[in-house]
Amino acid sequence: MPHAYETDGAAIYRQSFATIRAEADLARFSVEEEPVAVRMIHAAGMVELAPHIRFSPGFAEAARAALAAGAPILCDARMVSEGVTRSRLPADNTVLCTLHEPSVPQLAQDMANTRSAAALELWRPHLAGAVVAIGNAPTALFHLLNMLEDPDCPRPAAIIGCPVGFVGAAESKAALWEAPPVPCCIVEGRLGGSAITVATINALASRAE
Amino acid sequence: MPHAYETDGAAIYRQSFATIRAEADLARFSVEEEPVAVRMIHAAGMVELAPHIRFSPGFAEAARAALAAGAPILCDARMVSEGVTRSRLPADNTVLCTLHEPSVPQLAQDMANTRSAAALELWRPHLAGAVVAIGNAPTALFHLLNMLEDPDCPRPAAIIGCPVGFVGAAESKAALWEAPPVPCCIVEGRLGGSAITVATINALASRAE
Repeated sequence: MPHAYETDGAAIYRQSFATIRAEADLARFSVEEEPVAVRMIHAAGMVELAPHIRFSPGFAEAARAALAAGAPILCDARMVSEGVTRSRLPADNTVLCTLHEPSVPQLAQDMANTRSAAALELWRPHLAGAVVAIGNAPTALFHLLNMLEDPDCPRPAAIIGCPVGFVGAAESKAALWEAPPVPCCIVEGRLGGSAITVATINALASRAE
Repeated sequence: MPHAYETDGAAIYRQSFATIRAEADLARFSVEEEPVAVRMIHAAGMVELAPHIRFSPGFAEAARAALAAGAPILCDARMVSEGVTRSRLPADNTVLCTLHEPSVPQLAQDMANTRSAAALELWRPHLAGAVVAIGNAPTALFHLLNMLEDPDCPRPAAIIGCPVGFVGAAESKAALWEAPPVPCCIVEGRLGGSAITVATINALASRAE
């Protein structure tokens, strides 16, 4: 016998968000932050993510304003750039991932760093006022922080710093959180990843649920 | 002062996998399954994922053999298809995601189902012997199970069933696990997602760590 299940996408979202709001402790988030946290939890399938989410003051407002003004979204991985829902973007924003540009492997070798970190060098012409979305590589977030130690490096409007994993993820996010060069959002510890990062962008891009 | 961090990609993988093997309880996995579980945990950034991973008997062997024989990889979302590391594929395998085919929105409307489910109808010519990777939509997994109730529907070689979330994810994976039409792998409950699914494929595609 065929399986019966909810087939209405809007109803699935509605029920999912209602479950998250019933189960997760979201009290510490501002009105601007709460829908972002809800989508991050939704992407992770974990209400246990809530206590690990951190927004610096003014992050949600800065990122929303930048997107509304047409800021590009700079992503460290194709899984991030591909996940952004284009129809939610307020200004037909450019979504850029430079990881697979042909110059990156040589650049990485010259820098003695990963391709994920080297790819950020190609962000420089796009970085001023951008929304940065790092959802995979701790080395990308560390390299961004090092780039921004140079006062001549253009400043993004906001940084979503959510790399995932066992080496450098917790450390790079702690480094961002302890001295944010611009407003930022992180998931503390090992958790993070492309889906959570994409959800953050999708929530900031539109208030529609 | 610039942040100092590990910049050698191979060393990062090595340390990550060593941490996972030190912290996670992997004893119940077979030699064929263990490296797959390790990569799934790596993608999630959670050793707590281990007890939720389930492989049906012969799954890893069937999926590896299919990939080695050139099976296509059928993905429910672009975040899955984009994440597959092409250089790890043993036979230059086709990686297919039909979600954004122009016919899908109308098909979804006609089926009164989601676009994620409707997109699977376009898999039919590719389904025989394929490796299926569902890492996003519970409705896609439910629809696949319903398609396979028809004995005339071609059989894939193996199913990675890892949709994520709060509505239908746990239920669709339980339905697959209780009556697997072919060898399968799931993450029980709400956890899952594109990164875990991609990691499963990448581990099955090559034994290189």
